[in-house]
Amino acid sequence: MPNRRETDKQSRAHLRSLMESGDDASLRRAAAELHPADIAEILDSLETVDDKLRLYRLLPADTASDTLRNAQEHTRQELLEHIPDVDVAEVIERLDTDDAADILADLPEQRQRLLLDRSSPETRREVGDLLSYREDSAGGIMKTEVASARATATVGEATEYIRSRSEDFHDVHNIFVTDDKQRLLGLVPLRRLLLDDDSIPLRAIMETDLISVDAEVDQEEVAHIFERYDLLSLPVVDALNRLVGRITVDDIVDVIEEEATEDMLKLAGIGDEPLAPTSPLQQIRSRFPWLGLNLLTATVSAATVALFEETIAKIAVAAGLMTIVASQGGNAGVQTMTLVVRGLALGEVHPSQLWRLLGRELLTALGNGLLLGCGAGIIVYVWRHDWVLSAVIAVAMVINLLIAALVGSLAPLGLKMLKVDPAVSSAVLVTTATDMLGFFVFLSLLSLATR
Amino acid sequence: MPNRRETDKQSRAHLRSLMESGDDASLRRAAAELHPADIAEILDSLETVDDKLRLYRLLPADTASDTLRNAQEHTRQELLEHIPDVDVAEVIERLDTDDAADILADLPEQRQRLLLDRSSPETRREVGDLLSYREDSAGGIMKTEVASARATATVGEATEYIRSRSEDFHDVHNIFVTDDKQRLLGLVPLRRLLLDDDSIPLRAIMETDLISVDAEVDQEEVAHIFERYDLLSLPVVDALNRLVGRITVDDIVDVIEEEATEDMLKLAGIGDEPLAPTSPLQQIRSRFPWLGLNLLTATVSAATVALFEETIAKIAVAAGLMTIVASQGGNAGVQTMTLVVRGLALGEVHPSQLWRLLGRELLTALGNGLLLGCGAGIIVYVWRHDWVLSAVIAVAMVINLLIAALVGSLAPLGLKMLKVDPAVSSAVLVTTATDMLGFFVFLSLLSLATR
Repeated sequence: MPNRRETDKQSRAHLRSLMESGDDASLRRAAAELHPADIAEILDSLETVDDKLRLYRLLPADTASDTLRNAQEHTRQELLEHIPDVDVAEVIERLDTDDAADILADLPEQRQRLLLDRSSPETRREVGDLLSYREDSAGGIMKTEVASARATATVGEATEYIRSRSEDFHDVHNIFVTDDKQRLLGLVPLRRLLLDDDSIPLRAIMETDLISVDAEVDQEEVAHIFERYDLLSLPVVDALNRLVGRITVDDIVDVIEEEATEDMLKLAGIGDEPLAPTSPLQQIRSRFPWLGLNLLTATVSAATVALFEETIAKIAVAAGLMTIVASQGGNAGVQTMTLVVRGLALGEVHPSQLWRLLGRELLTALGNGLLLGCGAGIIVYVWRHDWVLSAVIAVAMVINLLIAALVGSLAPLGLKMLKVDPAVSSAVLVTTATDMLGFFVFLSLLSLATR
Repeated sequence: MPNRRETDKQSRAHLRSLMESGDDASLRRAAAELHPADIAEILDSLETVDDKLRLYRLLPADTASDTLRNAQEHTRQELLEHIPDVDVAEVIERLDTDDAADILADLPEQRQRLLLDRSSPETRREVGDLLSYREDSAGGIMKTEVASARATATVGEATEYIRSRSEDFHDVHNIFVTDDKQRLLGLVPLRRLLLDDDSIPLRAIMETDLISVDAEVDQEEVAHIFERYDLLSLPVVDALNRLVGRITVDDIVDVIEEEATEDMLKLAGIGDEPLAPTSPLQQIRSRFPWLGLNLLTATVSAATVALFEETIAKIAVAAGLMTIVASQGGNAGVQTMTLVVRGLALGEVHPSQLWRLLGRELLTALGNGLLLGCGAGIIVYVWRHDWVLSAVIAVAMVINLLIAALVGSLAPLGLKMLKVDPAVSSAVLVTTATDMLGFFVFLSLLSLATR
């Protein structure tokens, strides 16, 4: 058997060439060979909506729904605008409830209602329920397809139940055990059903030391629970501990990527811009706020420089040298800040470790500051043969690196304690501080030394 | 039943207070109530090795090995240095092969050999094999505990096999089906064993449309496969398609976090520094290279400024204003670069989309540049009442934002095409370009305008 991935690469290329040739019968056959995730990728890469629709319409119904689920959001939006309601309703019916809810959530409310009205009563109720949770809460990412049985049921009865609903339970690995009020008591892995006698009640073999999560909990917290306890699935309960759904780890993989990406984009000052193609207008809208804010803080830094106009008029090269000090401080501050922001997000750094962390960062800054200060001093001396300039830049470098360590650590930790997202607001604090104070320290030392 | 997480928080606090009281019997009882992941967190937070050892030694053997596996690397290292070989060998024996190999991989080679010699022949062979793979390859993260059976075996035989080894297969959800040369043919979900008659051969019910991965494939690629196809586990094969192991999704969750973290730290110029506590000396070593490189590039930018000493001596406020232009360019460039780097890592951006992406970024830069240029022009006019300065900063801003868009897109895409990691080298290219060219554009426009 050749490597599946390699085969797919070839088939994808083949499919693309068939798209161009216009041979729909062969195209249909070729698509049938591919995994829906691969077809979705091809859909994403097609330029026009017409091409996307043409390929989509050739897919068998169950492949079509899985393909739509796997496609990027912009592709899905384009397709959904053109697919008639009767077909979308079928997609909703075929998908797991969590994926159905995700697709509906992207549509206007009026169409949501219309589509739910076309669905089976069960889908309408379950997907409707899911839509009522916040999109980034445990309830918003769970599915309602849960295998559950009473504690008094026997192994035989549970096996029969799984058999009878094997269609719905394609990814079920556990049966959750509840009392007569649907309250969660424990779980039995499917594997146990193979091991035990049919007459044993689930109560006797269930694992009761189980972890569950409230439907209102944030998805980032849910992801931490999955990672921490190496879970494959997690039962979701309501305020009365009644079982309402289940989250599977494949959805958590997406959450983890999403949260990491979000943190990176926030650090760069790109609010919630999607990675995938978007319009320049949308990009301007998501990036301008950060740049606008930076315009104001940069102006404050420039005004700091203006305090020293006299010194600069006398020693014009200072204008260049001060940017070296600020730039080094900015980079060192971003290093510290990124480490702390990421450490906080992953739970590896705790605000309680403040003093230890600060001490380590300040010592690091002192070490790097001395090295870089000497380096800068030597460079400046070789360049300008001026001991004063050389000494001033060396001292200013050490001081600005210490400032960078202080702000780089305190900004994210402080914001976290104030319950503000450290990723979104730390960067502006750090670069403003290292620019402004870097200029100030260098120029005031210089004006003192040359007075 | 109260929420498990809340209970744990209380028990953890309780355990910490028992640590201080010195009541070992109660401590042992309290620890027995906790999940190994929670005990590991407490171990991580203890200050001294003595305290860590004291708590660790109170744990029952199976909890101890799971706790060690869950602890942070620095805690594990500290403990392993003090735990006698006979106990470490027991940990190795109890853990899944992938976790055992991870622990051994952190030890000096001599101790690795010694510990393997103390292990059972099976562990020695399997864990020894795992150690021969690159740590970040599919082989390096897989485990050898695989449920597999010949295609000719029956459902009844397979059930009996799972029953007989249920200890080893605590997280097994599929039986892999092979031919008589161990070559992978398909898989049967455990669920199917419940549905089908005992006499049916696996060949008749196995799913053959399965995805496998070669042991040499990089873990980042493995993570992409998991995400793309929503997998829970993935069989690993050798060059002859023989089944050699299995990767489970809980290990992939760690890989995804690791890769995202790596990208973030690289963008910030912190090579491979761990998030968790490390020494200032190590931190200096990991951060200095980037800062040293930046000292050189910042010096080049400063030298650019020095070309315009005459202009600056005449118009000293230009020294401050030029930093606004550079700072805005730097921020805008980092926005574009982060988007492209992250998009490349997640496979949402492809080098083939170069022209479309570049067009979109340049238009975005033009839009933001016009807005920010006007803003800066107005601020400068209000401040200095100088139309020339005001016009020069506005035009320089637009030009530097276009430069930022160009470098922010081309640097990561170009590096990717050259097969250099875009995360590690893009940032220096972008900030050097926007600083140096920002200064140059602003100062040369100004010197032309005021000549």
